[in-house]
Parts: sequence; structure tokens; C-alpha cells
Amino acid sequence: MVEQVEFKLPAKSRGYHLITSSILERLPSLPQQGLLNVFIKHTSAGLTINENADPSVRVDFENIFNDLVPENLPYLTHTMEGADDMPAHIKSSLVGASVNIPITNGQLNLGTWQGVYLCEFRNHGGSRKLVATIYS
Amino acid sequence: MVEQVEFKLPAKSRGYHLITSSILERLPSLPQQGLLNVFIKHTSAGLTINENADPSVRVDFENIFNDLVPENLPYLTHTMEGADDMPAHIKSSLVGASVNIPITNGQLNLGTWQGVYLCEFRNHGGSRKLVATIYS
Amino acid sequence: MVEQVEFKLPAKSRGYHLITSSILERLPSLPQQGLLNVFIKHTSAGLTINENADPSVRVDFENIFNDLVPENLPYLTHTMEGADDMPAHIKSSLVGASVNIPITNGQLNLGTWQGVYLCEFRNHGGSRKLVATIYS
Repeated sequence: MVEQVEFKLPAKSRGYHLITSSILERLPSLPQQGLLNVFIKHTSAGLTINENADPSVRVDFENIFNDLVPENLPYLTHTMEGADDMPAHIKSSLVGASVNIPITNGQLNLGTWQGVYLCEFRNHGGSRKLVATIYS
Repeated sequence: MVEQVEFKLPAKSRGYHLITSSILERLPSLPQQGLLNVFIKHTSAGLTINENADPSVRVDFENIFNDLVPENLPYLTHTMEGADDMPAHIKSSLVGASVNIPITNGQLNLGTWQGVYLCEFRNHGGSRKLVATIYS
Repeated sequence: MVEQVEFKLPAKSRGYHLITSSILERLPSLPQQGLLNVFIKHTSAGLTINENADPSVRVDFENIFNDLVPENLPYLTHTMEGADDMPAHIKSSLVGASVNIPITNGQLNLGTWQGVYLCEFRNHGGSRKLVATIYS
């Protein structure tokens, strides 16, 4: 059985945002056992699973990824949409466009410290469209 | 229901190649609702989803990933297969071996600007084997 | 049909470890056709698919990822759990928390040189919990 929901999340600031509960409140009740795929329909944002407790982790994510993929590299050719655009594309491929999470006993079977991040790589990315697909 | 197709794509030059239509033409007609997984059976190439319009994005991908994972790092030990080999392994783990795409209304539910890239990290990678699995 | 198994792997040293057979021995017999998702319930370890033969690849993985995400970056704020902790979070998002592998003719349809790595990014990560979900 497959259930699917498409929804928008409102614009977020550049950075890493915990959206586990924002996803859950848009889903139908979960099956006893299955898998959830959440997919983001954009190439300058991404989804990943990481630490859900200490906000300092998300601050360091922003700075480390900016170090990994700097803006204004002299050899870039895709520059028309701003200095934050091409690095955003690269970062979105580094973290990926979707996450898969097992569903067990009617709940997301995340580890104690795991949450879903929406990674907003643009300075002004606007609202973002996601698709959640549940298998059971 | 599960449908699965295995196929080869002909050798491509080192770089990032849009293969969305190459995949679609090898698939059976898509279900109304489901999920597509595309998997590449190699460790020196990868799959990712990124910008499908401006070819300059794919040029910059090549250069940025080469900066991220340089060839000829002095401490490398896995060097017998050439300077492009070990960086190719790392890059394939950075982007990943498979992508998941929701299927909605009988079509891939990609964002307007999203396409599937085959990332060929070797100088002469040869043809590449992929497996597409459709859930519905 | 969905089958799911949760299990622990014993503590491993920091580095990259082939766990394909450790996973397989914990799974029920595989269906003729389907997909396996393996998920790790931690944010300082990850799963990826890479070269299954030459151990030198896994040695180089450790050194290259340490170069990509160095310890003791001066601007880090999440430092209470040790110098290896924040880099471990970043690395886990770079490789990802789960892998998907097609199942064909009752077997994992991996390429000849592909295996599943458990990436232990902590110096003393302890045992790790994984969830395997099989679709058919």
C-alpha cells in the first residue's frame, strides 16, 4: 500500500531547520510497519537526518558547509543567480534530495537523537515543496 | 507491486550527465502513485538529482568536486588504478549510489528544475549498469 | 509486503567497515524481487556503498574524510562531546543514514565491487542500532 502527500513549507532563513514535526503533522496516521520517503522538489535545498537536540549543531553545519563549498570560487560559470546559487546546488547533492525513515509500531523509527533537517542553502529560497510517500 | 528493470548506459565522458529521459525510456508505464529507486552498480560513479536546464551547472559540478576531492593526495594508498580512481570512490559516496523519486499521477514528481545526473567520476569509466525499481 | 528487522552491531573502531554479510545474516530469506533499505539510528555514524575488495580504499576513506571535515575548526560551537563529535555529525550527513539496494532473483543486486560500509566517525562510538526494511 502506498500513501502520498504533497505539501509546502513556508520560507525559511538560510541554514538548517528541524522539520520532523512539520512533516508528521501533514501525514496520515502511520502504518504499523513500513518506510517513509520524504523528497524535496528543489535543487538548492536538501534534506538530511541529524542531531535533533542542540541548536549549536545546526549553526556549525552552516559554517562547515560554507567552508566545504565556498562562494565566489574564481572558476565558476553558473553565476547569474547570485553567489549563493551554485554552492547551493553542490550542497544539495552532498546531502541529497530525500530521506528514508523506517516506520515501526506505527511511528517513525528514528534514533533518540535523530531529526529531519530542511537544509536551506539559498539566502532567500522561498517556500519549498515536499512529497512524502509512505509504504506499508 | 514491484517492477524492476536492469539496463546499461553507454560509456560517458568524465563529468555530470542528465539521464532522466534515458531512464524513462527504459521503464514500463508508471503507476498512478508510487516511488522509483534508481541504483548504479558501481563504486566510481554515482547518481544525484540536480539542475536540469543550464549546462554550466554541470561544468561547475566537475570543478568543485575536483577541488573537494583532489587527485594525487600524498597520503593515498589505493593508487594502482590511476589518480582518478580513489577520488572517484569518495565522490561516489558523497553523492550516493541511488536516488528515490516519487511517482504521482503516472509521472515522476520531480520539481521543475530537477533532473537525474549520472556522475561519471572516472576518466574512462566505460558503460554503467543501473537497476530501476518501481513501487506502487 | 514489508518485512523489517532491527539489530545491533557491536562497537567498531573509528573507520570504514564492510558489513554486507553482517546485514545478510540478520535478514530473513530475500524475496525474488524488491528493495532493501538499511537505516542507522545514529547521527555520528553513517552507511554508504563502496568498494568491497581492497582494504586500502577504506584506509584512504578515513584520511580523505578527515581532510574534508577537520577536527578543531576554530569557529565550532558544538564542542562539548569532544573534537571528533561535530565532524562526525557532518560526515554522517555527507554519506547519509541509509542505503537502498535492489533485490533481484532472491539476492542483493549489488555490483561486483560493491559492499555496504558502516562508517564509524566517532573515536568510541559504541554499538550501533540498524533497521533493515525489505519491500517486495
